[in-house]
Amino acid sequence: MINIAVVGCGYWGPNLIRNFMANQNTNLLWVCDLDPQRLDAVLAIYPSVKKTTYFPDILEDSDIEGVVISTPVSNHYQLAKSCLENNKHVLVEKPFVTNSKQALELIALAEEKKLQIMCDHTFCYTGAVQKIKQIIDSGELGDILYYDSVRVNLGLIQNDVNVIWDLAVHDLAIVDFLFEKKPTSVSAHGVVHTGNSENIGYLILNYQDSFIAHFHVNWLAPVKIRKTLIGGNKKMIEWNDLVPAEKVKVYDKGIDLLKCDREQENKIRVSYRSGDIFSPYLDNTEALSNIVKEFAGCIKENRIPHTDGWAGLRVLKILEAADESMHLHGAAVELDW
Amino acid sequence: MINIAVVGCGYWGPNLIRNFMANQNTNLLWVCDLDPQRLDAVLAIYPSVKKTTYFPDILEDSDIEGVVISTPVSNHYQLAKSCLENNKHVLVEKPFVTNSKQALELIALAEEKKLQIMCDHTFCYTGAVQKIKQIIDSGELGDILYYDSVRVNLGLIQNDVNVIWDLAVHDLAIVDFLFEKKPTSVSAHGVVHTGNSENIGYLILNYQDSFIAHFHVNWLAPVKIRKTLIGGNKKMIEWNDLVPAEKVKVYDKGIDLLKCDREQENKIRVSYRSGDIFSPYLDNTEALSNIVKEFAGCIKENRIPHTDGWAGLRVLKILEAADESMHLHGAAVELDW
Amino acid sequence: MINIAVVGCGYWGPNLIRNFMANQNTNLLWVCDLDPQRLDAVLAIYPSVKKTTYFPDILEDSDIEGVVISTPVSNHYQLAKSCLENNKHVLVEKPFVTNSKQALELIALAEEKKLQIMCDHTFCYTGAVQKIKQIIDSGELGDILYYDSVRVNLGLIQNDVNVIWDLAVHDLAIVDFLFEKKPTSVSAHGVVHTGNSENIGYLILNYQDSFIAHFHVNWLAPVKIRKTLIGGNKKMIEWNDLVPAEKVKVYDKGIDLLKCDREQENKIRVSYRSGDIFSPYLDNTEALSNIVKEFAGCIKENRIPHTDGWAGLRVLKILEAADESMHLHGAAVELDW
Amino acid sequence: MINIAVVGCGYWGPNLIRNFMANQNTNLLWVCDLDPQRLDAVLAIYPSVKKTTYFPDILEDSDIEGVVISTPVSNHYQLAKSCLENNKHVLVEKPFVTNSKQALELIALAEEKKLQIMCDHTFCYTGAVQKIKQIIDSGELGDILYYDSVRVNLGLIQNDVNVIWDLAVHDLAIVDFLFEKKPTSVSAHGVVHTGNSENIGYLILNYQDSFIAHFHVNWLAPVKIRKTLIGGNKKMIEWNDLVPAEKVKVYDKGIDLLKCDREQENKIRVSYRSGDIFSPYLDNTEALSNIVKEFAGCIKENRIPHTDGWAGLRVLKILEAADESMHLHGAAVELDW
Repeated sequence: MINIAVVGCGYWGPNLIRNFMANQNTNLLWVCDLDPQRLDAVLAIYPSVKKTTYFPDILEDSDIEGVVISTPVSNHYQLAKSCLENNKHVLVEKPFVTNSKQALELIALAEEKKLQIMCDHTFCYTGAVQKIKQIIDSGELGDILYYDSVRVNLGLIQNDVNVIWDLAVHDLAIVDFLFEKKPTSVSAHGVVHTGNSENIGYLILNYQDSFIAHFHVNWLAPVKIRKTLIGGNKKMIEWNDLVPAEKVKVYDKGIDLLKCDREQENKIRVSYRSGDIFSPYLDNTEALSNIVKEFAGCIKENRIPHTDGWAGLRVLKILEAADESMHLHGAAVELDW
Repeated sequence: MINIAVVGCGYWGPNLIRNFMANQNTNLLWVCDLDPQRLDAVLAIYPSVKKTTYFPDILEDSDIEGVVISTPVSNHYQLAKSCLENNKHVLVEKPFVTNSKQALELIALAEEKKLQIMCDHTFCYTGAVQKIKQIIDSGELGDILYYDSVRVNLGLIQNDVNVIWDLAVHDLAIVDFLFEKKPTSVSAHGVVHTGNSENIGYLILNYQDSFIAHFHVNWLAPVKIRKTLIGGNKKMIEWNDLVPAEKVKVYDKGIDLLKCDREQENKIRVSYRSGDIFSPYLDNTEALSNIVKEFAGCIKENRIPHTDGWAGLRVLKILEAADESMHLHGAAVELDW
Repeated sequence: MINIAVVGCGYWGPNLIRNFMANQNTNLLWVCDLDPQRLDAVLAIYPSVKKTTYFPDILEDSDIEGVVISTPVSNHYQLAKSCLENNKHVLVEKPFVTNSKQALELIALAEEKKLQIMCDHTFCYTGAVQKIKQIIDSGELGDILYYDSVRVNLGLIQNDVNVIWDLAVHDLAIVDFLFEKKPTSVSAHGVVHTGNSENIGYLILNYQDSFIAHFHVNWLAPVKIRKTLIGGNKKMIEWNDLVPAEKVKVYDKGIDLLKCDREQENKIRVSYRSGDIFSPYLDNTEALSNIVKEFAGCIKENRIPHTDGWAGLRVLKILEAADESMHLHGAAVELDW
Repeated sequence: MINIAVVGCGYWGPNLIRNFMANQNTNLLWVCDLDPQRLDAVLAIYPSVKKTTYFPDILEDSDIEGVVISTPVSNHYQLAKSCLENNKHVLVEKPFVTNSKQALELIALAEEKKLQIMCDHTFCYTGAVQKIKQIIDSGELGDILYYDSVRVNLGLIQNDVNVIWDLAVHDLAIVDFLFEKKPTSVSAHGVVHTGNSENIGYLILNYQDSFIAHFHVNWLAPVKIRKTLIGGNKKMIEWNDLVPAEKVKVYDKGIDLLKCDREQENKIRVSYRSGDIFSPYLDNTEALSNIVKEFAGCIKENRIPHTDGWAGLRVLKILEAADESMHLHGAAVELDW
């Protein structure tokens, strides 16, 4: 049994608590939150869990092996650092920390202490993304040409982060998880209609080969859309996360480029393929349950999580570059890996 | 009766011919094409129409008042110029001509000759776009915040034009038709996967106020999508051109920005509105029939068409700026009106 | 405050309990269930509520004004009767009781005791059905011609009730709620593929005028469908209960019958109307919250609930006639009201 | 080359003519219609085809091997009979003839003359139905449990046939084509809202095993629906004929019935399977092109068409039984094969 503490039981905390309670290999010892009433309310159904409003209680409990940090992002760095210094593995909510310097520091500290840092990139642990990764890794799609995502809805306008940090962060974590390669530059376009942060964003990742990734995020859309297209030269994927069935469809569609003949040199000779459509069964285990399992497994077996601190850092560097590109009116900002 | 000639009877020509034959105020006298077999085939059911492979036949027929140019774009400029010089009104297929210099020259010539130049911006004459314009003009949407269009499918890869000139040209014509204002700069991103022209394109138009327009065009998508979102601060529109019913939906949705109070200064106080959805009945007259009517009406009444040479020019300037921006890796290219 | 007891905390019980706890005018005093562990688990978060496995505890508590019966249907009659005899109002889950004789007896007892019997016809208290009733009552649809519902999915095969008692009961409650008139006869067709009760059913209600209602229910469908069409001679409604938005659509569509002329007597002259489509905003209050409010209001104000014992009886009589019709291979069974 | 004549060039005639012209093995010699202006209009683009308003011209032309009868149904019997008597094969539009007695007579005559009678059951020649037949024949679905079709729209009210003869005839032809077995009885329910024939119909076919087929047809629906569910105990099919892609989906879903244990005898133990969804590529050859090919092939090779006179007769017998059942208020009418 891995002994766990959860810090912060706001919006996401109860879900974490429920999943750590349900996992057979974890033992939730403590939950910490600054608000004692919130603690009482959330833990009423888990009388065995200890409550505290005083974070050092957790640091000082030498039984605790892993700490889950589910507080506002501005506290992530300081809390995670303290945990690592006190020899505890950490699982941090997204976004990881507020800048890549902090991320690098935490990663170095964890490596020095031989501890794991894991980022809660939730979507990477869904049945849909797991299946898409499996399809991509099988080579079935051929060369991947593009990744295009639309993630829009009528959402809460926030003033402390813009829509790219709020919504595109999910897509960045997914793309980082699905593909080995890293973008060479980032272009971002955004508009502020209310408040002081961008509520519409368009983000483009350019890669060394001709692969391109594009994300449309919007807090002011009349309809909710979660649709991703992944184009390969052999097959293509459509992922609609909002439908109850057939979230992921694999299209046996594409083009085969033929040699041009002399006389029609400005008409490319392509042959279209259009075949079956296949919608694989998706494991519908709750993503958070898989995350708990991964965190516990990494602690027990001393292995690196699929979404480790480096993954969190890579996402952060793109978010930082996106902010810079928006200030440059969309000019491409080079990324240095 | 307005006497008309059609030049070019390739893919689009038969549709033009059919609509000019059907209109009660036009008289189709001539059809010209370089291929005599094509002429015979297309005109078999219209024995009254004269055929020619020799374009000057049309210029020399003083009965002809209007000429429709439906040839490859590289011939548009020369053919239109000859028509205007011979005192004939012209209706030109999209894209208007190959560059804005040619466009300006034709516009000047037409004004000098007191003739009309009309561009076949087909979508502007559909029931959907006409209804959307009416809704926008009524002020019902409030301040328009953004226009976002996705126009993707598994399309024919072309080598002489890229996907922006092929597909986004429709969206540019529509936006030009719907809104009075003109963009101040253009950013475009594209990728070449096959052949020598971009087959995926992302185009952004920036405006002086915070209005933004974005177009996603793609020849390599597994599914066909034609979906546009238009966000206003009072109401919003979703236009899905592929569904048989309810192409245009008006959502009584939006946000009202309230004053921030001191203590929660990084949470904007918004109140969401979410109300009825309304899908207006759309006139389903064929767009081309409306174009024929407009062209004939403009000749008869000596008035300027809704999609005149200036509209064609504005679209061309944006397409040229898009090409420039793509070569600058997406950097914004200023537009000078 | 109305003092309430809930009897039975199986599948539906916790939802009832949560809603009675949330209502400001009700005070949940007792929950009774035969399984003490189930009681402990469900009531862990409501420590103020008293628990019992002994039903008479509730009958004997003179503070209790209303009892909610949420046990298997075979117990409904006996439990409700005891409650009424002990001067308590009752809210009974669907189906009301096992036969119409029991229903009549309970209704008579309640009237004698001046108590309310309410049936939990849940759908009647949803925003969708409430809005549909409002539209029908306004006369907007004109004469109602038909009601057609499809309610199919891959469901649990049950042996004690057939698919009509399990699924069509919802539609019968809705139709009873929406329309004043009562069917004159019932035809039902069913097939048994597994077990010993029908897993596919087709149910037809015939009315004195040419109104017809048809229900298709199926436990063996590959997809979940909840779609209802309501046709009027002026307008028509489509209700799709599974979509997140636009559950109810009102179509300004229909036909106007014209006089036949002599020469074309076998062609009816109709003029089609096809107009706007309107999707009203629906109140998304949880149905059960409205039921709790109605039950409390009826007790307090001594008024008859919208879905009273007579409504439950009417539904039962149709279910009984449906069973009889199935045994007669679909022959129409007359209903005597 | 098979020499062909088409009789009747109303609504469907031009499609027949176009397909017989396109087929490489057929030679369209004559078209007959009572209206000479209609003949001129339709045949303007086919100057090689001879026109006549006098039907005996066709009977007397000994070059003609096959005649296509595309006139109002009331003339089918007499025209087909004359053709057979004059040693010509016949292809007859649906519905075959007006009653089963006529059908039997034509079938007997054709057999005596060693000629083919083919019925134009168009849907049986679509890529969708061909693929569904292939899947059923492969045994992939297991035992077929039910067939359920909805075919509704806002359609033309007709006075000479009811909605079952007009719309359900398609479904009857499809079911006859897909399955070997024949129904033992028919129940039908219909309502007349305008004119003098039923505009809403519900039709049920009962079979010796527990297979059941149900058809809902309606001329007064606000939306167009063409959706069929075919349930097997291993897999199930959903066929939506109105979508541009994925018309046919095969669901790897079903239930496996387990043995009941003693103690829970009123709960059937089933295990649900829920797996992949597969949407096969469909041949999109025009159905009529396949019909022309089949008719020509059957004449040339002297073989029986897939949709022969017996198929037409079987459909007619069900239509007649449906009418009888409607007059009996839905009582089952036995079929004698």
